[in-house]
Amino acid sequence: MASSFTFMPPKIGVLNISDRASAGVYADTPGQACVALLREWLVTPFELDYRIIPDEQPVIEAELRRMADEAGCCLVVTTGGTGPAPRDVTPEATLAVCQKILPGFGELMRATSLKYVPTAILSRQTAGIRGRTLIVNLPGRPKAIRENLEAVFPAIPYCIDLFEGPRLETIPTAMKAFRPPA
Amino acid sequence: MASSFTFMPPKIGVLNISDRASAGVYADTPGQACVALLREWLVTPFELDYRIIPDEQPVIEAELRRMADEAGCCLVVTTGGTGPAPRDVTPEATLAVCQKILPGFGELMRATSLKYVPTAILSRQTAGIRGRTLIVNLPGRPKAIRENLEAVFPAIPYCIDLFEGPRLETIPTAMKAFRPPA
Amino acid sequence: MASSFTFMPPKIGVLNISDRASAGVYADTPGQACVALLREWLVTPFELDYRIIPDEQPVIEAELRRMADEAGCCLVVTTGGTGPAPRDVTPEATLAVCQKILPGFGELMRATSLKYVPTAILSRQTAGIRGRTLIVNLPGRPKAIRENLEAVFPAIPYCIDLFEGPRLETIPTAMKAFRPPA
Repeated sequence: MASSFTFMPPKIGVLNISDRASAGVYADTPGQACVALLREWLVTPFELDYRIIPDEQPVIEAELRRMADEAGCCLVVTTGGTGPAPRDVTPEATLAVCQKILPGFGELMRATSLKYVPTAILSRQTAGIRGRTLIVNLPGRPKAIRENLEAVFPAIPYCIDLFEGPRLETIPTAMKAFRPPA
Repeated sequence: MASSFTFMPPKIGVLNISDRASAGVYADTPGQACVALLREWLVTPFELDYRIIPDEQPVIEAELRRMADEAGCCLVVTTGGTGPAPRDVTPEATLAVCQKILPGFGELMRATSLKYVPTAILSRQTAGIRGRTLIVNLPGRPKAIRENLEAVFPAIPYCIDLFEGPRLETIPTAMKAFRPPA
Repeated sequence: MASSFTFMPPKIGVLNISDRASAGVYADTPGQACVALLREWLVTPFELDYRIIPDEQPVIEAELRRMADEAGCCLVVTTGGTGPAPRDVTPEATLAVCQKILPGFGELMRATSLKYVPTAILSRQTAGIRGRTLIVNLPGRPKAIRENLEAVFPAIPYCIDLFEGPRLETIPTAMKAFRPPA
């Protein structure tokens, strides 16, 4: 029997969390902004798992679990639902499904946004790990998505290495990932 | 029956948490410092709900719940009880009554205080939302109260907008509140 | 009956958390780096409680409890186990045994490490208080240990004062501790 080596591209989940986008009232601009950034920075081909869901905590948790456990995404980025409004529950859903919390992501993203707007402190975004999946909350506005993901992305490929996920390589001129010397 | 439109001024709670101040041993300087800042910055007239209580977690929780649920304060600022001493339990009481935690407030207040004293990292102050009430922990020393509240106040009126509380307007020359363009 | 006054030196715990070091595969360099820093900075003589243990959460919790409750250490510094790898569980063990969490320590240590490496946000290190013991998580690499402990140490003697632990004095030319004027 012939054996063949097949490259399985890593999977990345993009989860657009928005009542209005999921109802078709709004364009899914934040999710598309994430996809555009991943394509701009990553040289590693990846398979995209893209969903638009409403701001319902059980729905968000179920989708995060599916993307992590069933789809096997090494990275899931969420957009939206991180503010102080009653419907904003993305951080609670993220904390509920993750085994490890990474407070440094939220700290750095808020510090970065504070250079632009004093309301950055209202963002409750966080990050964490479920099994072999890194989950990162991003805000809902495309400009803020870029500023935030740009700040934390240099640490993401090495984070995925540390839980033995697939090796992600970036285009160094677009995004310089950092891996400490062994 | 004649109907009349009555302007109900927003309520703001100031909760001075201190064993010694509540026993009358100390003047309630920290609470008064908060009131003075609110009067210096806010152009919107507000009704003040002012209390001095000891560092007892059940008492603090009960008072935060009363100010939020019964008095209907849109904002409650606490002073004192945020340090590492055994009697310091204000953050625990705040976390216990809030449905949403806003870690960015504590991060920014500590980073601000760090410019003045290296012991700023000992402050465990946080902020959160209970229903339609924003609760913000402040330190106990008047100088630190000003430094801390000044750092986070620009985001407070918009935060209250986001959970559909009353509109607070500041005197722009004294305190510039920020609301992102719609 | 003659009474004598005996100076009991304060106890400090150094807990090197590493599967490989505890198996003797690795030298216990991180723990030794902590001891060297404490000896470089502290003028107060102290008794050292030094252990090397594997990355097992129940073992770490038991050791932290022993150092706090039985040995009576006023300060315990841990090294290692703060990253996102599956075996990294030091912060979880720390959170589990502490009554009070001090988020400012982790925030400042990550902000400090961010000046050197963008992967600093992957460190989940924290600090907290159990009874009369301050527990501080440090990273595993000696260079990072110095950078991190140097950043937070100025606040440590005053923190121990606040829960009525022993008075630690530093060599001011090596490490300037800060105590606010009474």
